[in-house]
Amino acid sequence: MRAQADEAHSDLRAALEHLLAAGGKRVRPTLGLLVGNMLGAPLEKLVTLGAAVELLHTATLVHDDLIDGALLRRGMPTLNARWSPPATVLTGDFLFARAAKLAADTDHLPLMKLFSETLATIVNGELTQMFTSRGLINRENYDKRIYAKTASLFEMTSRAAAMVSPADETVIESMRCFGYEIGVAFQIVDDILDFTGDQNAVGKPLGSDLLNGLVTLPAIYYAEANPEDPDVLSLPNGGWTNNENMTRLVENIRATDAPKRAMNEAEGHIESALASLDSMPSCAERDALENLAKYIVDRKV
Amino acid sequence: MRAQADEAHSDLRAALEHLLAAGGKRVRPTLGLLVGNMLGAPLEKLVTLGAAVELLHTATLVHDDLIDGALLRRGMPTLNARWSPPATVLTGDFLFARAAKLAADTDHLPLMKLFSETLATIVNGELTQMFTSRGLINRENYDKRIYAKTASLFEMTSRAAAMVSPADETVIESMRCFGYEIGVAFQIVDDILDFTGDQNAVGKPLGSDLLNGLVTLPAIYYAEANPEDPDVLSLPNGGWTNNENMTRLVENIRATDAPKRAMNEAEGHIESALASLDSMPSCAERDALENLAKYIVDRKV
Repeated sequence: MRAQADEAHSDLRAALEHLLAAGGKRVRPTLGLLVGNMLGAPLEKLVTLGAAVELLHTATLVHDDLIDGALLRRGMPTLNARWSPPATVLTGDFLFARAAKLAADTDHLPLMKLFSETLATIVNGELTQMFTSRGLINRENYDKRIYAKTASLFEMTSRAAAMVSPADETVIESMRCFGYEIGVAFQIVDDILDFTGDQNAVGKPLGSDLLNGLVTLPAIYYAEANPEDPDVLSLPNGGWTNNENMTRLVENIRATDAPKRAMNEAEGHIESALASLDSMPSCAERDALENLAKYIVDRKV
Repeated sequence: MRAQADEAHSDLRAALEHLLAAGGKRVRPTLGLLVGNMLGAPLEKLVTLGAAVELLHTATLVHDDLIDGALLRRGMPTLNARWSPPATVLTGDFLFARAAKLAADTDHLPLMKLFSETLATIVNGELTQMFTSRGLINRENYDKRIYAKTASLFEMTSRAAAMVSPADETVIESMRCFGYEIGVAFQIVDDILDFTGDQNAVGKPLGSDLLNGLVTLPAIYYAEANPEDPDVLSLPNGGWTNNENMTRLVENIRATDAPKRAMNEAEGHIESALASLDSMPSCAERDALENLAKYIVDRKV
């Protein structure tokens, strides 16, 4: 990843260093490496794929943080907190370009197509979220949103790692499914942590999604159980802009079993993910994939 | 190109329609189609390549106009004049994604790599321009800038069209060269028109480059011939921010042979381009490529 700015302007190299130094869990490359290693893919292709996926993810975060005006990410200042908006837009573009180059370097055309389709899915999802009225309580909308936002890239990574392996269509489909399921679970857990997480660890105020008019799974469960709650009723009419009411709503959601029910749903996705490993041979990578899946629901950040 | 937003959010479809309705000369797809037709490439691949290149070009314009705060392009309101900056950033990203998908649809990996490298070159050039002090009078800087900004994509298009044809390495290299040379000429002519063009046709005020601190070829020739001109001397020290002085400098440049000398240089590049057609068989496409090359220096807009 670091090498991608080697021939670029020095400020761009510094920006990439800054972004990479912030770290992150690197869940996506881990997923790709484990799936590919399990299935006997060439390590070089998996490293290239992992770098492509993580760089694509980083590029989307750079533009997201600019759009949201976020000043911190992973405890470090965001690029837009230090740079002008124009420089931030172009840095994101540069990362998209280098991610696409890395994807092409896997020398696998179907992977390349999948890669660019996934980028289109992610961006279309963000635009749809932007144009959808805030405060909307809608399960179908939520499902589509978390697919575009998170599950699509997990799915693509796991599927692509299988595609560059000597694996048949059934195995590729199982791995696509594994990536999809843990991706959905990952985003649901993110959304739960927005209500129940350690604010310092998560790095955002509690209930920040609701304060931005984003109704996630815990709030959807709460709304189903408490359809007459005045704060719930206020949501589609701009009630999410009322800080005081939203703080109360967040407290109420936390006091019910809504976060627990959302967690049960995430755990269901993890079970489906584990089931798609059933036909895989016993090996260290399979064990590690099981642990990765379990980690996704157990994590605190 | 239009089909690229078929499955996307309706506002995104509308944005793409708006961008495509603004037209443009479509020089890059024309170049790719002519080169590929001359060399016997499958038409389907050339259409895909042309759409990929023009969509990539469109995506960079969307982000450029946002960054520059430009309100008009090709006589139509820019996207950022009608949409929020966040929606404009994401629309550009979506177009990048779909352009990459189209490039992958040519089923030609080296083309795909070239495509993503060219995008990186273009964006790196924009960032370098952003970080380079304004008012710099430097020939090497100018050459690098116009390569990144314009010639790289012309070069890539012409080369890629040859790559998907049954053409040997020598022919591919000739076509790369043809694209490069007309691309350099195209940008030099653009820079001349900024001084001498019909303001209504060009759609920008005369001398807008200088007023933005961008020293292009006519100004470089003028500065070489008039090194003691106080307006020239003021440029590297922020003199370009003085509207009155710059208006005078633009008038002075127009009154000398500096624009003519720049045009001679552009014509030299067109001659080199025509020379790289020498070994091509006589055919309608070759004639059309010659006409395209000549049009590039003759055009008024």
